[in-house]
Amino acid sequence: MKILSLALLVAILLFTGKLHSQSISPIDSSFLNLSYKLTQTALADTFGYNLLRELCAFGGRLSGSKNLLKAEDYLLKTMSGMGFDTVYTQTFTTTNWQRGKVEKFILRGKNSGSNVNFNVAALGGSVGTNGLLRADIIEISDFDELEHRKDEINGKIVFFNFEFNQKVYDSFSSYGPAVNFRVNGAHRAAKYGAVAVLIRSVASNFDDVPHTGTLRYIDSIPKIPGASLGVRGAVFLSELLKKRAMGEITQPLMFEMELDCKTEGTCEVKNLIAEIWGSEKKNEVIVVGAHLDAWDKGEGAHDDGAGCVQSIEVLHLIKKMGIKPKRTIRAVLFANEENGLAGARGYAKVTQDDVKKHYAAIESDRGGFVPRGFTADASPEVISKMTSWLPYFTMTGIEWFKKGGGGADISQIKGSNALIGFYPDSQRYFDVHHSENDVFSSVNHRELELGSASITILTLLLSEFGL
Amino acid sequence: MKILSLALLVAILLFTGKLHSQSISPIDSSFLNLSYKLTQTALADTFGYNLLRELCAFGGRLSGSKNLLKAEDYLLKTMSGMGFDTVYTQTFTTTNWQRGKVEKFILRGKNSGSNVNFNVAALGGSVGTNGLLRADIIEISDFDELEHRKDEINGKIVFFNFEFNQKVYDSFSSYGPAVNFRVNGAHRAAKYGAVAVLIRSVASNFDDVPHTGTLRYIDSIPKIPGASLGVRGAVFLSELLKKRAMGEITQPLMFEMELDCKTEGTCEVKNLIAEIWGSEKKNEVIVVGAHLDAWDKGEGAHDDGAGCVQSIEVLHLIKKMGIKPKRTIRAVLFANEENGLAGARGYAKVTQDDVKKHYAAIESDRGGFVPRGFTADASPEVISKMTSWLPYFTMTGIEWFKKGGGGADISQIKGSNALIGFYPDSQRYFDVHHSENDVFSSVNHRELELGSASITILTLLLSEFGL
Repeated sequence: MKILSLALLVAILLFTGKLHSQSISPIDSSFLNLSYKLTQTALADTFGYNLLRELCAFGGRLSGSKNLLKAEDYLLKTMSGMGFDTVYTQTFTTTNWQRGKVEKFILRGKNSGSNVNFNVAALGGSVGTNGLLRADIIEISDFDELEHRKDEINGKIVFFNFEFNQKVYDSFSSYGPAVNFRVNGAHRAAKYGAVAVLIRSVASNFDDVPHTGTLRYIDSIPKIPGASLGVRGAVFLSELLKKRAMGEITQPLMFEMELDCKTEGTCEVKNLIAEIWGSEKKNEVIVVGAHLDAWDKGEGAHDDGAGCVQSIEVLHLIKKMGIKPKRTIRAVLFANEENGLAGARGYAKVTQDDVKKHYAAIESDRGGFVPRGFTADASPEVISKMTSWLPYFTMTGIEWFKKGGGGADISQIKGSNALIGFYPDSQRYFDVHHSENDVFSSVNHRELELGSASITILTLLLSEFGL
Repeated sequence: MKILSLALLVAILLFTGKLHSQSISPIDSSFLNLSYKLTQTALADTFGYNLLRELCAFGGRLSGSKNLLKAEDYLLKTMSGMGFDTVYTQTFTTTNWQRGKVEKFILRGKNSGSNVNFNVAALGGSVGTNGLLRADIIEISDFDELEHRKDEINGKIVFFNFEFNQKVYDSFSSYGPAVNFRVNGAHRAAKYGAVAVLIRSVASNFDDVPHTGTLRYIDSIPKIPGASLGVRGAVFLSELLKKRAMGEITQPLMFEMELDCKTEGTCEVKNLIAEIWGSEKKNEVIVVGAHLDAWDKGEGAHDDGAGCVQSIEVLHLIKKMGIKPKRTIRAVLFANEENGLAGARGYAKVTQDDVKKHYAAIESDRGGFVPRGFTADASPEVISKMTSWLPYFTMTGIEWFKKGGGGADISQIKGSNALIGFYPDSQRYFDVHHSENDVFSSVNHRELELGSASITILTLLLSEFGL
């Protein structure tokens, strides 16, 4: 309904004269032609895809890691050689969490040969177990059940086995409810005396790969370790516990957990920024952004190497096509989105007193999949205006603009007309997100480049026609 | 533009009164509810995905192969146990082409250790080389160049190095021009005395996996062997030949080709058919179809295991939801689409005098990717009518209906109101098509199931509301 109703709305309002004519632009045939050429260039050009290959080759890019430093250096050199008007960095300090080397969750057998070793990943920010942790496990479906069974929690490992909702078209809408247990499970369980938490990975597929991501502690509540199980591991553990509850397993189940992750001091992280200055309105800035840091389990290919490459590619395509945009286009590769948001917060602070002001911002942080639409934190008039631009996106897969979030990195920006989030198809994102599945080979070059083309076209529409 | 213009067109025609009101149905809220539930059921249900896993485990399902016989048996048993009103087969005879065991294309080095072995795949239907074939190679871009250089062809292997056009959004539109050389290259080159053809794989990615597929011979022209090179192999060979032409390589290049593929007699192939009979119009049939055979290089996962599973799943979902359709729904798994079309031709012949008549047919043979739309060989009125159904597809990814082909298998059906082709996103299809990349792991369960849901909803709209 979403597309049809938007388009119908536009048509209906046009016909009934309720929409101010100035908010709908007639189709500009030379821009239409440009948008086609841009898409063709992006699809034929292997620049973005090859850049992503190089970026992914450094491995995960967690704040404080050597991989990230190498990736920053590489991209800074690359961008500096591309003929943009300026390339610079902003440096911030953030906490330095390290995964360590030990991540174990074991069901003890009669001897070491009959142990069951589960695949687990420490959650970002988790404290370690301080050696081997032996405790019984209690399975909890959600926070209602936790409250209901709060007297059974003390001294146990709480296993939050909340299932990712497969029943909806938009995977992002399933992420929120599920990630709640990863983020808040530890302090909620610790409040009732839990010694650790295990969560079922927030994932849309059925493999046994654990998906990491941050957890949150509350100062007044003890910090307990948290880790995620692969989906299959979680299903297996749940079956085991159910069998015990049914009396089908009578021998005692001995569980051991060990994590040596820790937060150790601070580290420096950088926003990498490149600009093409506006020919007419240099002080009006359109940001195209993504985050450079990535969880250490994979290569940060979809999350968010793809967005970084697309942000750089906007500038690359504008240069390559010989376009002189009216407004300034600024690509920002934000630091530390995954575990601190230091880059986004720092950027907003640094730029708030700048002579240049934010006209609009676009973020790509939902993977490098085939384009579907854009969500925008903007007024209904702005969204209507952008919807009237749909014909320029015919060759990209973009089918709609609708109300929605822009993205974590641009969310801190104040005073912009629109904070816009690129929305690729969401079916596969949570198969790879925050896990070892998020590698270069999971990105398709055509899908990635169609995203670059879509974001570039929208950037230029904002720059040339304005809202 | 496609969606907007369709939706706008509908709106404009509505407002200007040029569209007959009876061709646009008001939204039926109970069917809307049903369509949501159907999609949820498909997404949560692992039936289709697991069936595809089993089907792919047999390997490629080329006509005449043991794999195909096993797959036929397995699916027949599966469908027979699902409680449909009838399950039956139709048997036909087709030519029996076999790949054989030898597929070689070698650039001879000074010794066997310095040979360059290219990855090649015999084209379906190709004759063998009858032992080792030694010949020089001429690179030809297209048929214009072939005509222009016809005097240079005699005694040579013609290497058609036609590049898959990456510049367009819709990969299927790039397939036609490129596949022309695979299908017609051999007889066009043989006409001027070529001894064999090599083609650059019709593929959208950059690996070195050869993609197979049929070639065509013409009776009056000698039959010469044909094989495809992986894209990287083709690029390498082209560079080599260019260097020789520039005088940068002066030593003679010695090429050897060997294929022992052959056509040997005939084989039997089966259409597998299952039906749920209509409660009101039993003699009006809606076909949902796909083809069961698949090239032997991969597992026929996207081409067309996905379509087979989706066709069965239409019936499965209708049963599971307890729906009694008004019209008869017939799932047909067609035989021999890849190299003969015996199943499609036979089906059309067998059914032409049947008391049951085809009301409409839907084919899924463009891969198990995320839904985008449907193309239809139907009148503008029928397409408008189906477009008015878009709100029922909100949760599936389907965004449009437009004029276009239905598919090879249903193309032989006469007298239907609409021959409709399911149109998933096309970006990745030609990465896997007809190659060893077309395996189960390349299919995403959510994308596959959204396809099943889309096709089921359309089938039920046709059955319940009619055109």
